[in-house]
Amino acid sequence: MQLDIERLISDFGGPAALCEAFNQAFPDDPLSRAAIYKWRERGSIPLAQVNRLSVVAQQQGRSFSIHHYLAAEGSPAVATPVVTASQPQVSNMSDRLYIFDTTLRDGEQSPGAAMTKDEKIRIARQLEKLGVDIIEAGFAAASPGDADAIRAIAEVIKDSTVCSLARANPNDVRAAGEAIRPAARGRIHTFIATSPIHMEKKLRMTPDQVVEAAVAAVKLAREYTDDVEFSAEDALRSDIDFLARIFSAVIEAGATTLNVPDTVGYAVPQRTEAFFRELIGKTKGGDKVIWSAHCHNDLGMAVANSLAAVLGGARQVECTINGLGERAGNASLEEVVMAVKTRQDIFGVHTGVDATQIVPSSKLVSTITGYPVQPNKAIVGANAFAHESGIHQDGVLKHRETYEIMSAESVGWSTNRLTLGKLSGRNAFRTKLEALGIVLDSEEALNTAFARFKELADKKREIFDEDLQALVSDEATQHEHDALKLVSMRVHTETGEVPQAEIVISQNGNEQRAASSGSGPVDAAFKAIENLMQSGSELLLYSVNAITSGTDSQGEVTVRLSRSGRVVNGQGADTDIVVASAKAYLDALARLAGQEQKVNPQV
Amino acid sequence: MQLDIERLISDFGGPAALCEAFNQAFPDDPLSRAAIYKWRERGSIPLAQVNRLSVVAQQQGRSFSIHHYLAAEGSPAVATPVVTASQPQVSNMSDRLYIFDTTLRDGEQSPGAAMTKDEKIRIARQLEKLGVDIIEAGFAAASPGDADAIRAIAEVIKDSTVCSLARANPNDVRAAGEAIRPAARGRIHTFIATSPIHMEKKLRMTPDQVVEAAVAAVKLAREYTDDVEFSAEDALRSDIDFLARIFSAVIEAGATTLNVPDTVGYAVPQRTEAFFRELIGKTKGGDKVIWSAHCHNDLGMAVANSLAAVLGGARQVECTINGLGERAGNASLEEVVMAVKTRQDIFGVHTGVDATQIVPSSKLVSTITGYPVQPNKAIVGANAFAHESGIHQDGVLKHRETYEIMSAESVGWSTNRLTLGKLSGRNAFRTKLEALGIVLDSEEALNTAFARFKELADKKREIFDEDLQALVSDEATQHEHDALKLVSMRVHTETGEVPQAEIVISQNGNEQRAASSGSGPVDAAFKAIENLMQSGSELLLYSVNAITSGTDSQGEVTVRLSRSGRVVNGQGADTDIVVASAKAYLDALARLAGQEQKVNPQV
Repeated sequence: MQLDIERLISDFGGPAALCEAFNQAFPDDPLSRAAIYKWRERGSIPLAQVNRLSVVAQQQGRSFSIHHYLAAEGSPAVATPVVTASQPQVSNMSDRLYIFDTTLRDGEQSPGAAMTKDEKIRIARQLEKLGVDIIEAGFAAASPGDADAIRAIAEVIKDSTVCSLARANPNDVRAAGEAIRPAARGRIHTFIATSPIHMEKKLRMTPDQVVEAAVAAVKLAREYTDDVEFSAEDALRSDIDFLARIFSAVIEAGATTLNVPDTVGYAVPQRTEAFFRELIGKTKGGDKVIWSAHCHNDLGMAVANSLAAVLGGARQVECTINGLGERAGNASLEEVVMAVKTRQDIFGVHTGVDATQIVPSSKLVSTITGYPVQPNKAIVGANAFAHESGIHQDGVLKHRETYEIMSAESVGWSTNRLTLGKLSGRNAFRTKLEALGIVLDSEEALNTAFARFKELADKKREIFDEDLQALVSDEATQHEHDALKLVSMRVHTETGEVPQAEIVISQNGNEQRAASSGSGPVDAAFKAIENLMQSGSELLLYSVNAITSGTDSQGEVTVRLSRSGRVVNGQGADTDIVVASAKAYLDALARLAGQEQKVNPQV
Repeated sequence: MQLDIERLISDFGGPAALCEAFNQAFPDDPLSRAAIYKWRERGSIPLAQVNRLSVVAQQQGRSFSIHHYLAAEGSPAVATPVVTASQPQVSNMSDRLYIFDTTLRDGEQSPGAAMTKDEKIRIARQLEKLGVDIIEAGFAAASPGDADAIRAIAEVIKDSTVCSLARANPNDVRAAGEAIRPAARGRIHTFIATSPIHMEKKLRMTPDQVVEAAVAAVKLAREYTDDVEFSAEDALRSDIDFLARIFSAVIEAGATTLNVPDTVGYAVPQRTEAFFRELIGKTKGGDKVIWSAHCHNDLGMAVANSLAAVLGGARQVECTINGLGERAGNASLEEVVMAVKTRQDIFGVHTGVDATQIVPSSKLVSTITGYPVQPNKAIVGANAFAHESGIHQDGVLKHRETYEIMSAESVGWSTNRLTLGKLSGRNAFRTKLEALGIVLDSEEALNTAFARFKELADKKREIFDEDLQALVSDEATQHEHDALKLVSMRVHTETGEVPQAEIVISQNGNEQRAASSGSGPVDAAFKAIENLMQSGSELLLYSVNAITSGTDSQGEVTVRLSRSGRVVNGQGADTDIVVASAKAYLDALARLAGQEQKVNPQV
């Protein structure tokens, strides 16, 4: 049997009219329009609401019977259209550790790391491949662009839960609920600050008001999804009894995951473990929900604190690829995952992560955000497994286990695989892109990318996975900022003479020419661009990395510009470093022009 | 009264003859020549040896009286010339945490991070300014160059103890003892592996043999200095009872600091704390020595483990600037220091570090080793304090404490200070260099550096501290590898044409010219160099960072080359990125030619 929910809603005059009628009839327990959308999405209506619909119909002078809308069709047997959401019964002592990735939300809050919708989708696909349980795709209320990106991710991701952050207020929660609607599994993550200093200085609310706002937000969120997470911002500097009170209240309101963030990166592992243990014990219903840690790395202990929380009873860790995030960043996903895997004897939990996807994920996030990974970074740094790289140690080939607690291959390091060569055809190119999780949206896009690939293959003997990632990134960038494009460039430098650059830029289709001298060819090129654009921005950072090794590899340039307190990263890749630099500068200018003003929450 | 030790030794025929005679007389308890040098250095002889000297003299048919060599001079009253070394009585429950920096030893073992003697001295001076207690300056037995660098550091450093690493064998210990001789305070740090897997697979020794070697090494080390540290390699994977046994034995032999390394980066804080507590309790004399932690970061927990050790009773932490080191590196000095400072409430210890020197130290080490610091690195990353950089947060100016547990200024971040301008004179230049801890060894060197400064000031409006550091680095590099120098370069690139580079290199004074095309100007320059040099090396890494912000800043290029398993980093700085790249490539080639084969211990 199936419920014809469309007809039902339409009989009440559509979602808006139904919502209004409902709220007139039951002013003390209002219904949101979003909840109605949700009925439609699920194809079912909660039993309590069915009874109320009768009341509303009666007030309108009409008769109403739910049976009228039920039809026996050849659909999967649904015993009754009335679905009551039963929250998943997961004991917090389960041995499954949920990995909640917030690269796209907290990671994106790093200065200049703002990503485009397409970039976010590429990362989300890779996170799904990595086996992340929950992808926090953004903060829907931050801007229409953010909401749009979350919705787009919710549409394509099937295996991971897609989540949006929301402050504990109705607008934020509604925006989040709308954004995750297309998700196969969607979560709303709402938060409010609970430490005395935050409540007093930032929120200017009393503790009672804070509890009330949290409960209301969770209740509203439950109208959109059964999967609601609540975070107490700055929890580890909050009073534990107050925390237990607010957590008990939100559990009753329907929160299924409780997150305890170390917002300022201040915690120490031994205390964190004890704090979780005590808090879980003190919270009414604490044994019915998933507890979560979200640690910042200001004192270098984010990973240790996250794992201490696991020992104290947490079964979700919020983390980012490469530890990306504001200030010193968040706990590194790769370190958390490999620590629980390597020290199974201590933690006794397992994750659903496919560790061999760790290094590809790290490279993708680094390429897209322009945030380099330092060589001595654990797991994903270029040197993390350097003892394997043929460097002699005592001149003796030692038993492998002597210095190795995990293998480079197990986390996805492998020697550069030759991906494609000069003679590779269009089909091989398409197949390879698909294997890398890159889906181009049209045949035309594929053709353009293939043409660029051929061009690159002319200049560079061997094309690796990283080259293709960069090529597609660059392609996407070009595509998005078609308004501003490098047409051609001429650079001459000679010892004893002042470097000169001449450029031709196409701005909205009009070609403009400029020339400048500078202290070097890159400076000359940037000055020539500024002669035309007059952006008034300041260069904060300039860095180049070779995408692969070898002298003919492409240079990937990151340019960070700031203007009036806004910071953007621009990127460009080319085998010619000056061309790559000019592209990166133009990319940054385009982003500066297009960037929305956003709200950056601190969790 | 003063002992005329020179005359005494001379009366026995000099150190070599005395040593030989001594060892013939007491074959079971031999005396090293180094021990005799030490008498000379201290101006005293241990009482036991005085008695033996009588025996030796008697065997030689001569009479001997120590009083014969005593003279009452106007020197500081030394009650008796016989000094028995009393080891410092520091309880391990003191609240002073000693900071042992191993950037120059364990940090230098990072692939390509090998430093020249001058570079090491510059870092050592900065570490002294930072207030580090012990500087591990190298591993004397690794190569004559290493020993020489340690000796040079021992000569200039006054406030910090200078230490050399040594495996637990007589040759290593002697080399270490010789190298630290000039130090105001010198330490020998000897080590041997104690985990079953290391003893069996690497050492091929029985546990008894390992204890014996450790005791012998410590005894020998005590002949050179009273300050002897012993490390049990891979301690955290060793049997705790065996550790207690070997530690008890080396304490009796005279070790004053006991180090418990997590060699493979495998430990978990909660266990580490308990391990230290138990081990200290089980070790005879454990309350009379300083316990030390040395943690690697393979699972991202080096800092948390070091601090857990402190909670468990350790009072020395071994760490490196920027967490530099093999694989994922060591515990970061800056994170350890700021964690105990910020969380005084938990750790209850203090260090002697001047935190405002942390960021300058980090920049210097990064500049010299060519190892970048990622922006989201705690304390020293460019974004570590990004919430202060004018980026809006909720559009509200918040109470500072809300998100800030320490201030950027407290660790030495400050806005770029304008250091010098185009019109600055030679004296201002010299004064500024001195303030930066840079001492040029001659007026000529100062003149050359000043000329380069003027040249730079012509190209670049403002000269910052970082520019001067880079200028001096570059200068020193040029100086050391005079054999290979870039004379001039001409580069032309134009869209649609193949980039061309022409270079002139001076090799041992002979100028040679070469030209090449390439996929970009840098590739063309590298290929032109290779046309001349035919080095057969492989480019592993190429990166560029702007030394300061602004489009006219200098680019600092790092080039990592490898040949036959040896890896070097070369560096070059210039406002012209192609010139900087060519310089870096030549620097790497010179290092590849000059690099000694070294032994890299794992502790």
